[in-house]
Amino acid sequence: MPLKPRIEAAIANAIRMGQAGSAPPRLASALDYAVSPGGARIRPTICLSVAMACGDGKPAVADAAATAIELIHCASLVHDDMPCFDNADVRRGKPSVHRAYGEPLALLAGDSLIIMAFEVLARAAAQDPARAIDLIRILGESSGMPGGICAGQGWESESKIDLRAYHRAKTGALFTAATRMGAAAAGEEPDAWTELGARIGEAFQVADDLRDALYDEATLGKPAHQDEINGRPNAVSELGVRGAIRRLEDILSGAISSIPSCPGEAMLCDMVRKTAERLTPVLPAHHHA
Amino acid sequence: MPLKPRIEAAIANAIRMGQAGSAPPRLASALDYAVSPGGARIRPTICLSVAMACGDGKPAVADAAATAIELIHCASLVHDDMPCFDNADVRRGKPSVHRAYGEPLALLAGDSLIIMAFEVLARAAAQDPARAIDLIRILGESSGMPGGICAGQGWESESKIDLRAYHRAKTGALFTAATRMGAAAAGEEPDAWTELGARIGEAFQVADDLRDALYDEATLGKPAHQDEINGRPNAVSELGVRGAIRRLEDILSGAISSIPSCPGEAMLCDMVRKTAERLTPVLPAHHHA
Repeated sequence: MPLKPRIEAAIANAIRMGQAGSAPPRLASALDYAVSPGGARIRPTICLSVAMACGDGKPAVADAAATAIELIHCASLVHDDMPCFDNADVRRGKPSVHRAYGEPLALLAGDSLIIMAFEVLARAAAQDPARAIDLIRILGESSGMPGGICAGQGWESESKIDLRAYHRAKTGALFTAATRMGAAAAGEEPDAWTELGARIGEAFQVADDLRDALYDEATLGKPAHQDEINGRPNAVSELGVRGAIRRLEDILSGAISSIPSCPGEAMLCDMVRKTAERLTPVLPAHHHA
Repeated sequence: MPLKPRIEAAIANAIRMGQAGSAPPRLASALDYAVSPGGARIRPTICLSVAMACGDGKPAVADAAATAIELIHCASLVHDDMPCFDNADVRRGKPSVHRAYGEPLALLAGDSLIIMAFEVLARAAAQDPARAIDLIRILGESSGMPGGICAGQGWESESKIDLRAYHRAKTGALFTAATRMGAAAAGEEPDAWTELGARIGEAFQVADDLRDALYDEATLGKPAHQDEINGRPNAVSELGVRGAIRRLEDILSGAISSIPSCPGEAMLCDMVRKTAERLTPVLPAHHHA
Protein backbone atom coordinates (compact mmCIF):
# COMPACT_ATOMS: atom_id res chain seq x y z
CA MET A 1 0.00 0.00 0.00
CA PRO A 2 1.37 3.48 -0.79
CA LEU A 3 2.21 5.55 2.29
CA LYS A 4 -0.45 8.22 2.21
CA PRO A 5 -3.59 6.01 2.14
CA ARG A 6 -1.94 3.66 4.65
CA ILE A 7 -1.44 6.57 7.06
CA GLU A 8 -4.92 8.00 6.53
CA ALA A 9 -6.54 4.60 7.09
CA ALA A 10 -4.62 4.04 10.32
CA ILE A 11 -5.48 7.51 11.67
CA ALA A 12 -9.16 7.18 10.68
CA ASN A 13 -9.33 3.82 12.41
CA ALA A 14 -7.90 5.25 15.65
CA ILE A 15 -10.35 8.18 15.57
CA ARG A 16 -13.28 5.82 14.94
CA MET A 17 -12.39 3.84 18.06
CA GLY A 18 -12.42 7.06 20.08
CA GLN A 19 -15.89 7.90 18.76
CA ALA A 20 -17.45 4.50 19.49
CA GLY A 21 -20.26 3.57 21.88
CA SER A 22 -21.72 6.32 24.03
CA ALA A 23 -19.20 9.07 23.25
CA PRO A 24 -20.40 12.67 23.59
CA PRO A 25 -21.16 13.53 19.94
CA ARG A 26 -19.64 17.02 19.67
CA LEU A 27 -16.33 15.98 21.23
CA ALA A 28 -16.35 12.88 19.00
CA SER A 29 -16.81 15.15 15.99
CA ALA A 30 -14.06 17.52 17.20
CA LEU A 31 -11.56 14.63 17.23
CA ASP A 32 -12.14 14.00 13.55
CA TYR A 33 -12.09 17.73 12.78
CA ALA A 34 -8.76 18.12 14.60
CA VAL A 35 -6.91 15.55 12.48
CA SER A 36 -8.29 16.48 9.06
CA PRO A 37 -7.72 17.35 6.30
CA GLY A 38 -4.50 15.43 6.39
CA GLY A 39 -2.02 17.58 4.51
CA ALA A 40 1.49 16.21 4.13
CA ARG A 41 1.41 14.01 7.27
CA ILE A 42 5.14 14.59 7.32
CA ARG A 43 5.94 12.95 10.70
CA PRO A 44 4.05 9.69 10.08
CA THR A 45 5.50 9.61 6.55
CA ILE A 46 9.01 9.80 7.98
CA CYS A 47 8.13 7.17 10.58
CA LEU A 48 6.75 4.70 8.04
CA SER A 49 9.60 5.40 5.61
CA VAL A 50 12.14 4.47 8.27
CA ALA A 51 10.14 1.38 9.26
CA MET A 52 10.01 0.31 5.60
CA ALA A 53 13.71 1.01 5.13
CA CYS A 54 14.28 -1.35 8.08
CA GLY A 55 12.15 -4.10 6.50
CA ASP A 56 8.69 -3.26 7.99
CA GLY A 57 8.37 -6.77 9.39
CA LYS A 58 5.33 -5.87 11.50
CA PRO A 59 3.35 -3.29 9.51
CA ALA A 60 0.55 -3.01 12.12
CA VAL A 61 3.15 -1.92 14.69
CA ALA A 62 4.59 0.65 12.27
CA ASP A 63 1.07 1.93 11.52
CA ALA A 64 0.47 2.36 15.25
CA ALA A 65 3.74 4.27 15.64
CA ALA A 66 2.95 6.58 12.71
CA THR A 67 -0.60 7.18 13.96
CA ALA A 68 0.47 7.90 17.52
CA ILE A 69 2.98 10.52 16.40
CA GLU A 70 0.42 12.27 14.21
CA LEU A 71 -2.21 12.25 16.99
CA ILE A 72 0.24 13.91 19.37
CA HIS A 73 1.17 16.42 16.68
CA CYS A 74 -2.51 17.25 16.02
CA ALA A 75 -3.16 17.55 19.77
CA SER A 76 -0.31 20.03 20.09
CA LEU A 77 -1.70 22.11 17.20
CA VAL A 78 -5.16 22.20 18.81
CA HIS A 79 -3.76 23.34 22.15
CA ASP A 80 -1.20 25.75 20.64
CA ASP A 81 -3.93 27.45 18.61
CA MET A 82 -5.97 28.24 21.74
CA PRO A 83 -6.36 31.84 22.90
CA CYS A 84 -3.82 31.50 25.72
CA PHE A 85 -1.11 30.57 23.18
CA ASP A 86 -1.24 31.63 19.53
CA ASN A 87 -4.93 32.57 19.54
CA ALA A 88 -5.11 31.31 15.97
CA ASP A 89 -8.48 31.50 14.22
CA VAL A 90 -7.40 29.44 11.24
CA ARG A 91 -5.64 26.08 10.83
CA ARG A 92 -5.41 23.88 7.73
CA GLY A 93 -7.38 26.55 5.89
CA LYS A 94 -10.45 26.20 8.13
CA PRO A 95 -11.45 27.56 11.56
CA SER A 96 -9.21 26.23 14.33
CA VAL A 97 -10.82 23.69 16.66
CA HIS A 98 -11.60 26.20 19.43
CA ARG A 99 -13.17 28.55 16.87
CA ALA A 100 -15.32 25.74 15.47
CA TYR A 101 -16.18 23.90 18.72
CA GLY A 102 -15.39 26.34 21.53
CA GLU A 103 -12.49 26.31 23.98
CA PRO A 104 -13.77 23.56 26.30
CA LEU A 105 -14.02 21.02 23.49
CA ALA A 106 -10.70 22.13 21.99
CA LEU A 107 -8.98 21.55 25.31
CA LEU A 108 -10.67 18.15 25.67
CA ALA A 109 -10.01 17.17 22.06
CA GLY A 110 -6.30 17.80 22.60
CA ASP A 111 -6.31 15.79 25.83
CA SER A 112 -8.23 12.95 24.17
CA LEU A 113 -5.86 12.81 21.20
CA ILE A 114 -2.84 12.61 23.53
CA ILE A 115 -4.43 9.70 25.40
CA MET A 116 -5.52 8.06 22.14
CA ALA A 117 -1.91 8.07 20.93
CA PHE A 118 -0.88 5.90 23.86
CA GLU A 119 -3.93 3.66 23.44
CA VAL A 120 -3.03 3.04 19.79
CA LEU A 121 0.45 1.91 20.86
CA ALA A 122 -0.95 -0.25 23.68
CA ARG A 123 -3.14 -2.05 21.14
CA ALA A 124 -0.05 -2.77 19.02
CA ALA A 125 1.15 -4.91 21.94
CA ALA A 126 -1.10 -7.65 20.54
CA GLN A 127 1.46 -7.91 17.70
CA ASP A 128 4.60 -7.30 19.76
CA PRO A 129 4.55 -6.28 23.45
CA ALA A 130 8.25 -5.41 23.65
CA ARG A 131 8.11 -3.08 20.64
CA ALA A 132 4.87 -1.51 21.93
CA ILE A 133 6.55 -0.68 25.23
CA ASP A 134 9.59 0.80 23.44
CA LEU A 135 7.27 2.94 21.31
CA ILE A 136 5.29 4.15 24.33
CA ARG A 137 8.53 5.08 26.06
CA ILE A 138 9.86 7.01 23.07
CA LEU A 139 6.53 8.78 22.49
CA GLY A 140 6.38 9.82 26.16
CA GLU A 141 9.92 11.22 26.10
CA SER A 142 9.20 13.10 22.89
CA SER A 143 5.88 14.59 24.02
CA GLY A 144 6.07 15.42 27.70
CA MET A 145 8.49 16.81 30.24
CA PRO A 146 11.42 17.33 30.58
CA GLY A 147 12.38 17.18 26.88
CA GLY A 148 9.31 16.67 24.68
CA ILE A 149 7.09 19.12 22.84
CA CYS A 150 5.34 20.22 26.06
CA ALA A 151 8.76 21.24 27.38
CA GLY A 152 9.45 23.06 24.12
CA GLN A 153 6.24 25.01 24.39
CA GLY A 154 6.96 25.59 28.08
CA TRP A 155 10.18 27.43 27.20
CA GLU A 156 8.03 30.19 25.69
CA SER A 157 6.85 31.05 29.22
CA GLU A 158 10.39 31.53 30.54
CA SER A 159 12.04 34.93 30.82
CA LYS A 160 15.47 33.38 30.01
CA ILE A 161 15.17 30.88 27.20
CA ASP A 162 17.58 27.97 26.63
CA LEU A 163 17.49 28.16 22.82
CA ARG A 164 19.07 24.78 22.19
CA ALA A 165 16.70 22.99 24.57
CA TYR A 166 13.79 25.03 23.18
CA HIS A 167 14.30 24.06 19.52
CA ARG A 168 15.27 20.49 20.29
CA ALA A 169 12.08 19.99 22.30
CA LYS A 170 9.58 22.19 20.48
CA THR A 171 10.13 21.03 16.90
CA GLY A 172 12.88 18.43 17.07
CA ALA A 173 11.31 16.01 19.53
CA LEU A 174 8.52 14.74 17.27
CA PHE A 175 10.90 14.38 14.31
CA THR A 176 13.37 12.31 16.33
CA ALA A 177 10.32 10.40 17.60
CA ALA A 178 9.37 9.75 13.97
CA THR A 179 12.70 8.19 12.95
CA ARG A 180 13.27 6.44 16.30
CA MET A 181 9.75 5.00 16.44
CA GLY A 182 9.96 3.92 12.80
CA ALA A 183 13.11 1.97 13.64
CA ALA A 184 11.72 0.58 16.92
CA ALA A 185 8.50 -0.52 15.16
CA ALA A 186 10.66 -2.56 12.79
CA GLY A 187 12.63 -4.06 15.67
CA GLU A 188 15.78 -1.97 15.16
CA GLU A 189 17.77 -0.13 17.82
CA PRO A 190 16.32 3.42 17.72
CA ASP A 191 19.43 5.37 18.80
CA ALA A 192 21.16 5.09 15.42
CA TRP A 193 18.17 6.93 13.94
CA THR A 194 18.09 9.93 16.28
CA GLU A 195 20.35 12.12 14.18
CA LEU A 196 18.30 11.73 11.01
CA GLY A 197 15.17 12.84 12.87
CA ALA A 198 16.99 15.71 14.55
CA ARG A 199 18.32 17.02 11.22
CA ILE A 200 14.95 16.76 9.47
CA GLY A 201 13.47 18.61 12.47
CA GLU A 202 16.05 21.39 12.19
CA ALA A 203 15.38 21.70 8.47
CA PHE A 204 11.68 21.86 9.13
CA GLN A 205 12.15 24.55 11.77
CA VAL A 206 14.23 26.72 9.43
CA ALA A 207 11.69 26.21 6.61
CA ASP A 208 8.88 27.09 9.00
CA ASP A 209 10.73 30.21 10.10
CA LEU A 210 11.12 31.21 6.46
CA ARG A 211 7.44 30.65 5.77
CA ASP A 212 6.37 32.50 8.91
CA ALA A 213 8.55 35.47 7.96
CA LEU A 214 7.74 35.60 4.23
CA TYR A 215 4.17 34.41 3.74
CA ASP A 216 0.73 35.79 4.49
CA GLU A 217 -2.14 34.06 6.29
CA ALA A 218 -3.93 33.05 3.06
CA THR A 219 -0.86 31.17 1.81
CA LEU A 220 -0.01 29.62 5.17
CA GLY A 221 -3.56 28.59 6.07
CA LYS A 222 -2.77 29.99 9.55
CA PRO A 223 -1.79 33.39 10.99
CA ALA A 224 1.53 34.72 9.65
CA HIS A 225 4.41 36.56 11.35
CA GLN A 226 3.62 34.89 14.67
CA ASP A 227 7.30 34.70 15.68
CA GLU A 228 7.80 38.41 15.15
CA ILE A 229 4.51 39.26 16.89
CA ASN A 230 5.33 37.03 19.87
CA GLY A 231 9.05 37.92 19.96
CA ARG A 232 10.10 34.31 19.37
CA PRO A 233 13.53 33.34 18.01
CA ASN A 234 13.53 32.79 14.24
CA ALA A 235 16.28 31.68 11.80
CA VAL A 236 15.42 34.50 9.36
CA SER A 237 15.93 37.21 11.94
CA GLU A 238 19.27 35.58 12.89
CA LEU A 239 20.66 34.69 9.44
CA GLY A 240 18.60 36.65 6.92
CA VAL A 241 16.63 34.98 4.13
CA ARG A 242 19.67 33.83 2.09
CA GLY A 243 21.50 32.63 5.16
CA ALA A 244 18.48 30.66 6.31
CA ILE A 245 18.12 28.99 2.90
CA ARG A 246 21.83 28.02 2.89
CA ARG A 247 21.37 26.64 6.39
CA LEU A 248 18.42 24.55 5.22
CA GLU A 249 20.47 23.01 2.40
CA ASP A 250 23.37 22.19 4.72
CA ILE A 251 21.07 20.52 7.23
CA LEU A 252 19.45 18.33 4.58
CA SER A 253 22.81 17.09 3.24
CA GLY A 254 23.73 16.29 6.84
CA ALA A 255 20.45 14.39 7.21
CA ILE A 256 21.18 12.25 4.15
CA SER A 257 24.69 11.38 5.27
CA SER A 258 23.40 10.41 8.76
CA ILE A 259 21.17 7.60 7.43
CA PRO A 260 22.32 4.29 8.95
CA SER A 261 23.08 1.43 6.61
CA CYS A 262 19.82 -0.52 6.05
CA PRO A 263 17.99 -2.40 3.28
CA GLY A 264 16.04 0.69 2.19
CA GLU A 265 18.84 3.24 2.44
CA ALA A 266 18.45 4.50 -1.16
CA MET A 267 14.68 4.88 -0.76
CA LEU A 268 15.18 6.86 2.44
CA CYS A 269 17.71 9.22 0.85
CA ASP A 270 15.07 9.80 -1.78
CA MET A 271 12.45 10.52 0.91
CA VAL A 272 14.71 13.13 2.54
CA ARG A 273 15.43 14.72 -0.86
CA LYS A 274 11.68 14.90 -1.53
CA THR A 275 11.17 16.46 1.89
CA ALA A 276 13.86 18.99 0.96
CA GLU A 277 12.11 19.74 -2.32
CA ARG A 278 8.80 20.15 -0.55
CA LEU A 279 10.45 22.61 1.82
CA THR A 280 12.60 24.58 -0.68
CA PRO A 281 10.53 25.23 -3.84
CA VAL A 282 8.38 27.60 -1.81
CA LEU A 283 11.42 29.82 -1.34
CA PRO A 284 12.78 31.14 -4.68
CA ALA A 285 9.91 33.55 -5.28
CA HIS A 286 10.82 35.27 -2.02
CA HIS A 287 14.57 34.67 -2.28
CA HIS A 288 15.25 38.33 -2.92
CA ALA A 289 12.79 39.55 -0.32
CA MET B 1 5.34 0.79 54.21
CA PRO B 2 2.01 2.47 55.11
CA LEU B 3 -0.02 3.57 52.11
CA LYS B 4 0.21 7.33 52.33
CA PRO B 5 4.03 7.75 52.36
CA ARG B 6 4.32 5.00 49.74
CA ILE B 7 1.98 6.94 47.43
CA GLU B 8 3.66 10.30 48.07
CA ALA B 9 7.11 8.84 47.41
CA ALA B 10 5.98 7.27 44.13
CA ILE B 11 4.33 10.50 42.93
CA ALA B 12 7.31 12.64 43.97
CA ASN B 13 9.63 10.30 42.10
CA ALA B 14 7.57 10.56 38.90
CA ILE B 15 7.47 14.36 39.12
CA ARG B 16 11.25 14.51 39.70
CA MET B 17 11.85 12.56 36.50
CA GLY B 18 9.69 15.07 34.61
CA GLN B 19 11.76 17.95 36.01
CA ALA B 20 15.17 16.46 35.18
CA GLY B 21 17.85 17.73 32.80
CA SER B 22 17.11 20.83 30.77
CA ALA B 23 13.42 21.19 31.63
CA PRO B 24 11.93 24.70 31.45
CA PRO B 25 11.99 25.71 35.15
CA ARG B 26 8.54 27.29 35.51
CA LEU B 27 6.72 24.39 33.87
CA ALA B 28 8.82 22.01 35.97
CA SER B 29 7.71 23.89 39.07
CA ALA B 30 4.07 23.89 37.92
CA LEU B 31 4.09 20.08 37.74
CA ASP B 32 5.00 19.84 41.39
CA TYR B 33 2.51 22.58 42.32
CA ALA B 34 -0.28 20.73 40.48
CA VAL B 35 0.08 17.50 42.46
CA SER B 36 0.56 18.98 45.94
CA PRO B 37 -0.42 19.14 48.72
CA GLY B 38 -1.58 15.57 48.49
CA GLY B 39 -4.81 15.47 50.46
CA ALA B 40 -6.54 12.11 50.71
CA ARG B 41 -5.09 10.64 47.48
CA ILE B 42 -8.25 8.61 47.41
CA ARG B 43 -7.83 7.00 43.96
CA PRO B 44 -4.25 5.77 44.47
CA THR B 45 -5.23 4.61 47.98
CA ILE B 46 -8.01 2.48 46.49
CA CYS B 47 -5.65 1.19 43.80
CA LEU B 48 -2.94 0.17 46.26
CA SER B 49 -5.51 -1.29 48.68
CA VAL B 50 -6.84 -3.56 45.94
CA ALA B 51 -3.30 -4.53 44.85
CA MET B 52 -2.46 -5.37 48.47
CA ALA B 53 -5.69 -7.31 48.92
CA CYS B 54 -4.58 -9.35 45.87
CA GLY B 55 -1.15 -10.04 47.38
CA ASP B 56 0.85 -7.08 45.99
CA GLY B 57 3.39 -9.45 44.41
CA LYS B 58 5.07 -6.67 42.40
CA PRO B 59 4.86 -3.50 44.51
CA ALA B 60 6.73 -1.35 41.98
CA VAL B 61 4.04 -2.14 39.40
CA ALA B 62 1.29 -1.26 41.91
CA ASP B 63 3.09 1.99 42.76
CA ALA B 64 3.21 2.85 39.06
CA ALA B 65 -0.52 2.13 38.70
CA ALA B 66 -1.41 4.28 41.73
CA THR B 67 0.83 7.13 40.56
CA ALA B 68 -0.49 7.08 37.00
CA ILE B 69 -4.10 7.36 38.20
CA GLU B 70 -3.29 10.28 40.49
CA LEU B 71 -1.35 12.11 37.77
CA ILE B 72 -4.32 11.82 35.40
CA HIS B 73 -6.63 12.98 38.19
CA CYS B 74 -4.43 16.01 38.93
CA ALA B 75 -4.18 16.82 35.20
CA SER B 76 -7.96 16.79 34.95
CA LEU B 77 -8.25 19.16 37.92
CA VAL B 78 -5.75 21.58 36.38
CA HIS B 79 -7.60 21.65 33.05
CA ASP B 80 -11.09 21.70 34.63
CA ASP B 81 -10.13 24.70 36.75
CA MET B 82 -9.17 26.76 33.70
CA PRO B 83 -11.28 29.77 32.68
CA CYS B 84 -13.01 27.94 29.80
CA PHE B 85 -14.37 25.35 32.27
CA ASP B 86 -14.95 26.11 35.96
CA ASN B 87 -12.80 29.24 36.03
CA ALA B 88 -11.77 28.27 39.58
CA ASP B 89 -9.33 30.56 41.36
CA VAL B 90 -8.73 28.19 44.26
CA ARG B 91 -7.82 24.50 44.49
CA ARG B 92 -6.51 22.56 47.50
CA GLY B 93 -6.74 25.81 49.48
CA LYS B 94 -4.24 27.65 47.27
CA PRO B 95 -4.46 29.46 43.91
CA SER B 96 -5.30 27.10 41.06
CA VAL B 97 -2.45 26.35 38.64
CA HIS B 98 -3.58 28.85 35.99
CA ARG B 99 -3.90 31.56 38.66
CA ALA B 100 -0.42 30.81 39.99
CA TYR B 101 1.41 30.14 36.69
CA GLY B 102 -0.85 31.54 33.98
CA GLU B 103 -3.04 29.72 31.48
CA PRO B 104 -0.31 28.60 29.05
CA LEU B 105 1.61 26.75 31.77
CA ALA B 106 -1.59 25.31 33.27
CA LEU B 107 -2.55 23.88 29.90
CA LEU B 108 0.96 22.47 29.44
CA ALA B 109 1.18 21.14 33.00
CA GLY B 110 -2.04 19.20 32.43
CA ASP B 111 -0.76 17.82 29.12
CA SER B 112 2.59 16.89 30.69
CA LEU B 113 0.94 15.11 33.63
CA ILE B 114 -1.22 13.05 31.25
CA ILE B 115 1.86 11.99 29.28
CA MET B 116 3.81 11.35 32.49
CA ALA B 117 1.12 8.92 33.65
CA PHE B 118 1.75 6.74 30.62
CA GLU B 119 5.51 7.06 31.00
CA VAL B 120 5.32 5.85 34.60
CA LEU B 121 3.44 2.75 33.43
CA ALA B 122 5.87 2.17 30.55
CA ARG B 123 8.74 2.17 33.06
CA ALA B 124 6.92 -0.51 35.09
CA ALA B 125 7.40 -2.78 32.08
CA ALA B 126 10.91 -3.41 33.40
CA GLN B 127 9.20 -5.41 36.19
CA ASP B 128 6.42 -6.93 34.11
CA PRO B 129 5.75 -6.00 30.47
CA ALA B 130 2.37 -7.78 30.24
CA ARG B 131 0.99 -6.07 33.34
CA ALA B 132 2.35 -2.69 32.17
CA ILE B 133 0.50 -3.04 28.86
CA ASP B 134 -2.73 -4.02 30.67
CA LEU B 135 -2.37 -0.97 32.92
CA ILE B 136 -1.74 1.37 29.99
CA ARG B 137 -4.82 -0.01 28.23
CA ILE B 138 -7.04 0.45 31.30
CA LEU B 139 -5.71 3.95 31.99
CA GLY B 140 -6.33 4.97 28.37
CA GLU B 141 -9.90 3.68 28.43
CA SER B 142 -10.56 5.44 31.72
CA SER B 143 -9.08 8.79 30.71
CA GLY B 144 -9.81 9.44 27.06
CA MET B 145 -12.59 8.97 24.54
CA PRO B 146 -15.15 7.44 24.17
CA GLY B 147 -15.71 6.55 27.85
CA GLY B 148 -13.04 8.12 30.06
CA ILE B 149 -12.96 11.35 32.05
CA CYS B 150 -12.42 13.45 28.89
CA ALA B 151 -15.67 12.00 27.55
CA GLY B 152 -17.35 12.79 30.88
CA GLN B 153 -16.24 16.40 30.74
CA GLY B 154 -17.21 16.49 27.06
CA TRP B 155 -20.84 15.71 27.95
CA GLU B 156 -21.03 19.14 29.62
CA SER B 157 -20.76 20.70 26.14
CA GLU B 158 -23.76 18.77 24.78
CA SER B 159 -27.26 20.24 24.62
CA LYS B 160 -28.77 16.79 25.28
CA ILE B 161 -26.85 15.00 28.02
CA ASP B 162 -26.73 11.20 28.45
CA LEU B 163 -26.74 11.27 32.26
CA ARG B 164 -25.68 7.65 32.72
CA ALA B 165 -22.76 7.97 30.32
CA TYR B 166 -21.90 11.35 31.84
CA HIS B 167 -21.58 10.16 35.45
CA ARG B 168 -19.98 6.86 34.53
CA ALA B 169 -17.29 8.67 32.55
CA LYS B 170 -16.81 11.90 34.51
CA THR B 171 -16.40 10.51 38.02
CA GLY B 172 -16.76 6.76 37.70
CA ALA B 173 -14.02 6.10 35.16
CA LEU B 174 -11.06 6.89 37.43
CA PHE B 175 -12.55 4.92 40.33
CA THR B 176 -13.07 1.82 38.21
CA ALA B 177 -9.54 2.46 36.89
CA ALA B 178 -8.33 2.46 40.50
CA THR B 179 -9.78 -0.95 41.41
CA ARG B 180 -9.11 -2.50 37.98
CA MET B 181 -5.52 -1.27 37.84
CA GLY B 182 -4.89 -2.35 41.43
CA ALA B 183 -5.99 -5.86 40.48
CA ALA B 184 -4.09 -5.84 37.15
CA ALA B 185 -0.92 -4.62 38.91
CA ALA B 186 -1.14 -7.67 41.17
CA GLY B 187 -1.68 -10.00 38.20
CA GLU B 188 -5.42 -10.52 38.76
CA GLU B 189 -8.18 -10.35 36.15
CA PRO B 190 -9.43 -6.73 36.42
CA ASP B 191 -13.06 -7.28 35.35
CA ALA B 192 -14.12 -8.78 38.69
CA TRP B 193 -13.08 -5.49 40.28
CA THR B 194 -15.02 -3.10 38.08
CA GLU B 195 -18.16 -3.03 40.23
CA LEU B 196 -16.31 -2.09 43.41
CA GLY B 197 -14.73 0.89 41.64
CA ALA B 198 -18.00 1.90 40.05
CA ARG B 199 -19.82 1.88 43.41
CA ILE B 200 -17.09 3.84 45.18
CA GLY B 201 -17.26 6.31 42.31
CA GLU B 202 -21.03 6.68 42.66
CA ALA B 203 -20.67 7.22 46.39
CA PHE B 204 -18.01 9.80 45.80
CA GLN B 205 -20.18 11.60 43.26
CA VAL B 206 -23.13 11.77 45.67
CA ALA B 207 -20.86 12.96 48.49
CA ASP B 208 -19.35 15.57 46.18
CA ASP B 209 -22.84 16.73 45.18
CA LEU B 210 -23.72 17.07 48.87
CA ARG B 211 -20.57 19.04 49.60
CA ASP B 212 -21.03 21.27 46.54
CA ALA B 213 -24.62 22.01 47.57
CA LEU B 214 -24.03 22.50 51.31
CA TYR B 215 -20.56 23.95 51.82
CA ASP B 216 -18.89 27.26 51.15
CA GLU B 217 -15.62 27.96 49.34
CA ALA B 218 -13.55 28.24 52.55
CA THR B 219 -14.61 24.75 53.68
CA LEU B 220 -14.28 23.17 50.23
CA GLY B 221 -10.95 24.80 49.35
CA LYS B 222 -12.51 25.45 45.92
CA PRO B 223 -15.51 27.42 44.61
CA ALA B 224 -18.88 26.16 45.95
CA HIS B 225 -22.29 25.72 44.31
CA GLN B 226 -20.67 25.12 40.92
CA ASP B 227 -23.31 22.59 39.85
CA GLU B 228 -26.13 24.99 40.53
CA ILE B 229 -24.26 27.88 38.88
CA ASN B 230 -23.45 25.79 35.81
CA GLY B 231 -26.82 24.02 35.68
CA ARG B 232 -25.22 20.59 36.10
CA PRO B 233 -27.13 17.52 37.37
CA ASN B 234 -26.72 16.96 41.12
CA ALA B 235 -28.00 14.21 43.47
CA VAL B 236 -29.18 16.80 46.04
CA SER B 237 -31.39 18.60 43.57
CA GLU B 238 -32.84 15.23 42.50
CA LEU B 239 -33.24 13.50 45.89
CA GLY B 240 -32.95 16.22 48.53
CA VAL B 241 -30.29 16.15 51.26
CA ARG B 242 -31.79 13.22 53.23
CA GLY B 243 -32.44 11.24 50.06
CA ALA B 244 -28.87 11.79 48.87
CA ILE B 245 -27.45 10.63 52.23
CA ARG B 246 -29.59 7.46 52.12
CA ARG B 247 -28.42 6.87 48.58
CA LEU B 248 -24.79 7.20 49.72
CA GLU B 249 -25.26 4.58 52.45
CA ASP B 250 -26.93 2.14 50.03
CA ILE B 251 -24.15 2.51 47.49
CA LEU B 252 -21.44 1.84 50.08
CA SER B 253 -23.13 -1.37 51.32
CA GLY B 254 -23.33 -2.43 47.67
CA ALA B 255 -19.62 -1.67 47.27
CA ILE B 256 -18.71 -3.87 50.23
CA SER B 257 -20.78 -6.80 49.03
CA SER B 258 -19.23 -6.55 45.53
CA ILE B 259 -15.68 -7.22 46.77
CA PRO B 260 -14.37 -10.40 45.10
CA SER B 261 -13.02 -13.15 47.31
CA CYS B 262 -9.28 -12.46 47.84
CA PRO B 263 -6.61 -12.78 50.57
CA GLY B 264 -7.16 -9.21 51.80
CA GLU B 265 -10.96 -9.15 51.63
CA ALA B 266 -11.45 -8.09 55.26
CA MET B 267 -8.88 -5.31 54.95
CA LEU B 268 -10.62 -4.03 51.83
CA CYS B 269 -14.05 -3.98 53.48
CA ASP B 270 -12.40 -1.91 56.16
CA MET B 271 -10.96 0.48 53.57
CA VAL B 272 -14.39 0.99 52.00
CA ARG B 273 -15.94 1.57 55.44
CA LYS B 274 -13.23 4.17 56.17
CA THR B 275 -13.94 5.82 52.83
CA ALA B 276 -17.60 5.90 53.83
CA GLU B 277 -16.74 7.48 57.16
CA ARG B 278 -14.55 10.06 55.44
CA LEU B 279 -17.45 10.91 53.15
CA THR B 280 -20.32 10.88 55.68
CA PRO B 281 -19.21 12.61 58.93
CA VAL B 282 -19.10 15.90 57.08
CA LEU B 283 -22.85 15.64 56.59
CA PRO B 284 -24.75 15.61 59.94
CA ALA B 285 -24.12 19.30 60.69
CA HIS B 286 -25.95 20.14 57.45
CA HIS B 287 -28.41 17.26 57.61
CA HIS B 288 -31.30 19.60 58.38
CA ALA B 289 -30.19 22.27 55.92
